[in-house]
Amino acid sequence: MKKLNLLALLLSVSAFAQIDKIEPPFWYAGMHNPELQIMFYGKNIAQYETSVSNNIVIKNVVKTENPNYIFVTIDTKNIPASDFVFSFKTKNKVAFTKKYSLKARRKNSAQRKSFDSSDLMYLIMPDRFANGNPNNDTDKSLNEKADRSLPGGRHGGDIEGIIKHLDYLEELGVTALWSTPLCEDNDKVHSYHTYGQSDVYRIDPRYGTNEEYVRLSAELKKRNMKLIKDYVTNHWGAEHWMYKDLPTYDWIHQFPGFSQSNYRMTTQFDTNASAIDTKNCMDGWFVPSMPDLNQSNPLVLNYLIQNAIWWIEYADLDGFRVDTYSYNDKIGIAKWTKAITDEYPYFNIVGEVWMHDQAQMSYWQKDSPISAIQSYNSYLPSVMDFTLHDAFGNVFNEDKATWNDGMIKVYDNFANDFLYPNVNNLLTFVENHDTGRFNHIYKNDFKKYQMAMAIIATVRGIPQIYYGSEIGMAGDKAKGDADIRQDFPGGWAGDKNNAFTKAGRTEEQAKFFDFSSKLFQWRKGKSVIHSGKMTHYIPEDNVYVYFRYDDNETVMVVINNAAQAKTFKTGRFQENIKNFTTGKDVLTGKSINVKEDVTIDSKSVLILELK
Amino acid sequence: MKKLNLLALLLSVSAFAQIDKIEPPFWYAGMHNPELQIMFYGKNIAQYETSVSNNIVIKNVVKTENPNYIFVTIDTKNIPASDFVFSFKTKNKVAFTKKYSLKARRKNSAQRKSFDSSDLMYLIMPDRFANGNPNNDTDKSLNEKADRSLPGGRHGGDIEGIIKHLDYLEELGVTALWSTPLCEDNDKVHSYHTYGQSDVYRIDPRYGTNEEYVRLSAELKKRNMKLIKDYVTNHWGAEHWMYKDLPTYDWIHQFPGFSQSNYRMTTQFDTNASAIDTKNCMDGWFVPSMPDLNQSNPLVLNYLIQNAIWWIEYADLDGFRVDTYSYNDKIGIAKWTKAITDEYPYFNIVGEVWMHDQAQMSYWQKDSPISAIQSYNSYLPSVMDFTLHDAFGNVFNEDKATWNDGMIKVYDNFANDFLYPNVNNLLTFVENHDTGRFNHIYKNDFKKYQMAMAIIATVRGIPQIYYGSEIGMAGDKAKGDADIRQDFPGGWAGDKNNAFTKAGRTEEQAKFFDFSSKLFQWRKGKSVIHSGKMTHYIPEDNVYVYFRYDDNETVMVVINNAAQAKTFKTGRFQENIKNFTTGKDVLTGKSINVKEDVTIDSKSVLILELK
Repeated sequence: MKKLNLLALLLSVSAFAQIDKIEPPFWYAGMHNPELQIMFYGKNIAQYETSVSNNIVIKNVVKTENPNYIFVTIDTKNIPASDFVFSFKTKNKVAFTKKYSLKARRKNSAQRKSFDSSDLMYLIMPDRFANGNPNNDTDKSLNEKADRSLPGGRHGGDIEGIIKHLDYLEELGVTALWSTPLCEDNDKVHSYHTYGQSDVYRIDPRYGTNEEYVRLSAELKKRNMKLIKDYVTNHWGAEHWMYKDLPTYDWIHQFPGFSQSNYRMTTQFDTNASAIDTKNCMDGWFVPSMPDLNQSNPLVLNYLIQNAIWWIEYADLDGFRVDTYSYNDKIGIAKWTKAITDEYPYFNIVGEVWMHDQAQMSYWQKDSPISAIQSYNSYLPSVMDFTLHDAFGNVFNEDKATWNDGMIKVYDNFANDFLYPNVNNLLTFVENHDTGRFNHIYKNDFKKYQMAMAIIATVRGIPQIYYGSEIGMAGDKAKGDADIRQDFPGGWAGDKNNAFTKAGRTEEQAKFFDFSSKLFQWRKGKSVIHSGKMTHYIPEDNVYVYFRYDDNETVMVVINNAAQAKTFKTGRFQENIKNFTTGKDVLTGKSINVKEDVTIDSKSVLILELK
Repeated sequence: MKKLNLLALLLSVSAFAQIDKIEPPFWYAGMHNPELQIMFYGKNIAQYETSVSNNIVIKNVVKTENPNYIFVTIDTKNIPASDFVFSFKTKNKVAFTKKYSLKARRKNSAQRKSFDSSDLMYLIMPDRFANGNPNNDTDKSLNEKADRSLPGGRHGGDIEGIIKHLDYLEELGVTALWSTPLCEDNDKVHSYHTYGQSDVYRIDPRYGTNEEYVRLSAELKKRNMKLIKDYVTNHWGAEHWMYKDLPTYDWIHQFPGFSQSNYRMTTQFDTNASAIDTKNCMDGWFVPSMPDLNQSNPLVLNYLIQNAIWWIEYADLDGFRVDTYSYNDKIGIAKWTKAITDEYPYFNIVGEVWMHDQAQMSYWQKDSPISAIQSYNSYLPSVMDFTLHDAFGNVFNEDKATWNDGMIKVYDNFANDFLYPNVNNLLTFVENHDTGRFNHIYKNDFKKYQMAMAIIATVRGIPQIYYGSEIGMAGDKAKGDADIRQDFPGGWAGDKNNAFTKAGRTEEQAKFFDFSSKLFQWRKGKSVIHSGKMTHYIPEDNVYVYFRYDDNETVMVVINNAAQAKTFKTGRFQENIKNFTTGKDVLTGKSINVKEDVTIDSKSVLILELK
C-alpha cells in the first residue's frame, strides 16, 4: 500500500507538470445535454490513454494533428455533483491523474429568466466607466499597461468600479447591464475594447477576477438587475494561448492565416452570391489581430458552446449580447445559439446584426419568416433595430417634412414590423460603442435628446442606452473609436466633475439625467409599453402620433419634430382615443383635453396616459 | 298571328328605347367560369321582370337602389356559341326584348401564352408616338380637341400610327408592346394620358376603333410580337358615364365624394397602421378627377373582371399591365387577379407596385413568402423592379466607389432576390412614363446609356424600355409630365426629323438606335439570359462582374463604372469561368482571353459569350 501511494504521489506530481489547461475547468451536474467534452492541454498529452473514475462513461476521445490536445467526451447523465479523477496511462501504467468536478447548479438554473422588453439596458465599456480598484490597472503578466493619457490606451476602469456605481444605474432606471467583454485580452494595444480575447475562461486581471465578476452578478441581482455578457463567437485575439499552438489547422479560418472579410453580410443569403464572396464574408477575418474561428469544426463549436454555458452557470448570467453575429459560419452559429437556448429555454441572446434593411435583419431572428424561405433558422431570439438607428441619424435635424424626410422615417421603420417574428425582442437604441454619439451628432440639443429617448422608451422592443449619454456625454466617431468611448466623469479618483452624484453633476448634466431617470423610471412599471399593442398614424406636418395600449391602459405619444409649435385635431385618432377625455403628461404631470385640439411645442414630445 | 307580330315589333322598338347599355356587350362560350353577370342599363329598367330564351338559366338578378340598372347572372355552362334573347316583362307582358350573343373563342384561347423574360417590352404613350390617321385627332362627341401646341394637350397619336411603325419596333428588337390606356377618356384636359377612362368597353375614337385595336393585336402577332393592355382597376375618370348615374352609392369610395389618398402603401400590410390611414390609402382617390372604384362591392369586382376578360378574348391580348395596383382594395384586387389567371393560367399580369423596398414589392407578387406572413396572396404574377430603378437614379454618376456608392447599389438590388417568389417575372426598367427620363438625368451620355441598357438586357427579369430613349430622347420630369412624354420625331406628317427610318435619323440618334438594336436583337435568342442562373461578385473598384449561365452557355458581363479604364484579374471568377478561355464581346465581336487580366474602358460594358 505504501509503495502504491508513493507511486500515486509521484504520478500526481508528474500530472501537474503534464497538463497546462483543462477546459471547461469544471462543469455542472444535471445539464440538459449530458455530454461534456473536456479539453486537456499539455505537452504530448495525446500519447496517453485516458480513463475516468466513478464508473463514468467516456463516450469518445478525439485526438488531433497536434499531440498537445485531447478532447474527452464523458456522459454526465445521472452523475451527481461530485469530484472524480481522470487517469492518463502509458504502456498500461498510470502516468498521472487529474481531478475534475461536477458542481451543483443553482436552483432553477435551467429555467432562469432573462432580459426582455420590460428592461432598460445600459451599455458600458468597463475600462471607461469607473476605476474601482486602482491596484489592478496594470498586470505584470499582461502586455498593455495602464496609460490614461492615451485615448486608445487602458484607463483602469474595472468591475469594482461598476459595482460601486450600481446605485447610480438603479437611480437612472437601468435594469440590465451589458458590459463589453471582460475576459482576458492580451493585445499589445487597444486591449481596452477587449474584443480580441486571449483566454475566454478568465476575467482580465485588469478588470478583476472571476470571483469579482460573480460578485457583480450577485450585486445586480440584489437590485433586481440583470447581467448580460458580451460573447464573441466569431474570433479571438491573436494573443489567445490556443492560437499559438492550434489544436487543428482548421480551428481558425486559414487563407493560410489572415485574409480580411469583405463585410458584405448579404452574401449569407443572397442566392446570386458567388461562393468565394460568401466564404470571404464568413471566413475572412475582421482585422489581422483577430483570428476567425471556424464554427464548422465540431471541436471549435463545442468549445464555444461549453464556454458560453459555463459562464451562464458560473456567473449566473441573465443574457448574452453576441458580437458580429452575422459574420459567423451561418450553420455553426445557429447550432451554438440553439444549444444554449436548449439548455435555457428562456435565456435571451441579442445578436449584433448590423444591416440596413428589415428583411435582412429579420433573417437572423429566431423563427423568421424571411430565413424560412431558405429553410434556415438562426435560433437567435433578439436582433438589434439598426434601421431605427439609421432613421435617427439625421431625422431630428429635418425640421421640414417632405415625402421622405422628417418623422416619416421613424414611422416607416415600424411599418415593416410585420417582417419580424418577434418585435418585442428587438433592441432599440440611438447609439452604441461603435456608432456616432447622439449628443455629438445633435450638438447636445436637449430637445432632440428628449425626442429620441422618448421614442425608444415608448415603442416596442428593449431600449438600450449607452453610458454617459444620460448626462450629455458626446464624442465624435470621425475622430476615432476612442472619442466615443471617453471616461465617465467621476469614475476616477481626482475627477473634478463627478456625474455619478446629484451634487457632482453640472446643471447641464442634471438636466439630461433627471429627464432620463424620470422617463425610464416611469417605463419600468408600464406593462402597456413592455407588451402592449401599437397603432401609429402617418405623420402630418412632421408630427408623429402613436398609441400603445392593452386591456388596462392606453398611452398616446406625440412627437413634434417641426421647428414650430403645432396644434392639431385629434378626431383622426378616434380609434385609439375612444372615450378617453384626458391625457396626463408623464413628463410634466400636466393634463390636457384630448377631445379638443392639442398643441405641442417645437421639437418636443408628449407622453400622455389617457384617462 | 299578325296581331302578335305587330305587338312584338312594337315591343322591340320600345326595347331599343329602354336600354342604353348592355355590358359586357357580348360574351364567349366555354369559359372556365360559366357564370356571366350582364348589366342592363336603361331608364327604370329595374321595374321589369327578366327572362331568357334557349332554356338558359338565370341564376340571379340583382337590383340596386338605382332603378336604371339590373345585373342578371346567367349560367353559360354547355351553352354553345349562339344568339339568344332576353325578355323584359311588366304586368306579366313582354315589354321589350334584347338579343345577346355568346361568341366562339379562338382556338386555345384559355391556354394562351403571354409575355415573359424572353421578351423586350416597349412602352409607348399612343398620343405621343405617331399620328397614323390625322382625321381622328379630334372627335366631336368628346371634350378635348387636338392641339399639338399644348404640351399637355392631345397631339393626335393613334393606333394607326403604332401599326405603321411595327417594323421599326421589330428592327429594334421589341417583342411586346405596352401602350398606356386606349379606352375612351373624356376628361376636358390632359386626357392624352387616358388613365381617367369614361368608357372601358370602347377604344377612344381619337385613337381609333375597337376593330382597329384588334387589328393592332393581329398585326403584332404576325410579327411574333405581343400586345399588353394597360388596365386600370383602381379608378375611372369623372366623366365615366356610370359615375354620372351610379348603380350603387358604394360603387366608388365616398367620403362622401372625393378624398385624396395618402399614397402610403405600407398601410396595406403594416400591422401597426391605423384603420383610418389604411382606408385612406386604399379608398382615397388618386386625384379629384378619378373616382376610386370599390372592388369590395361584388358588382364592381365582377364588372372589372368581366371587362378585363372581355378584352383578352376580344382583342386576343397577351398580357396586362395594371395601374396603381397596390392602391386597390387589397382583397378585391387579389380576387380580380385570380379570376383572370383562373381563366388563363399562363396569362401574365404586371402590376405597378411603386415601392422602395424589395420585401414590400415582393409582398404583391403571387405566392410571395412575404405576404404569406399575413396569409395574403395577390395572385399577381409580375411586379416592377422599382428598387433597381432607384439604384439607376444616380449610380452612373458615382465614378468613385465607396461602401455605399457606385456599382454596389446595383449589386445590392440583386442581393435581395431571394425575397421574391419569381425573379424571372420582375419587370426591369430604367424609366417609364412617370419617372425622369434616363437621357435627361444622364445628359444623353451614351456610355451611361449603354451601361444601363446592358444591365437590363442581361440580368434576370423582363426588360422594359420607354419609347424614344432608344434614339436618345430626353425630357425633364421637373418640368412636368408632358416633358417626359414628348412626341416621337417622325410620328407626325411634316416632322423634320424622322427617327423611325435609318435615313431619317441624326448621327446621334443612329448611335443610340444601332447599339440598342444590336443588344436587344442579341438578347432575343439567348435563353441563357431569359432563364439562366446568375452569379454575381461584389464590385471591386466600381467594376461589377456577373455571369448568366445554364447547361449550354455562359455569359460574363463586366460593367466598369469608374472614370478610368480598369484592368483586373479573373482568378476570382473561377467558379464561373471554369475551363472557358475566351470571351467574345457581343457588342464589338472582339475576343479576349479570360484566363489573363482583362482590361475594360472607363464607363463601359463587356458582354462576353464564353467559349
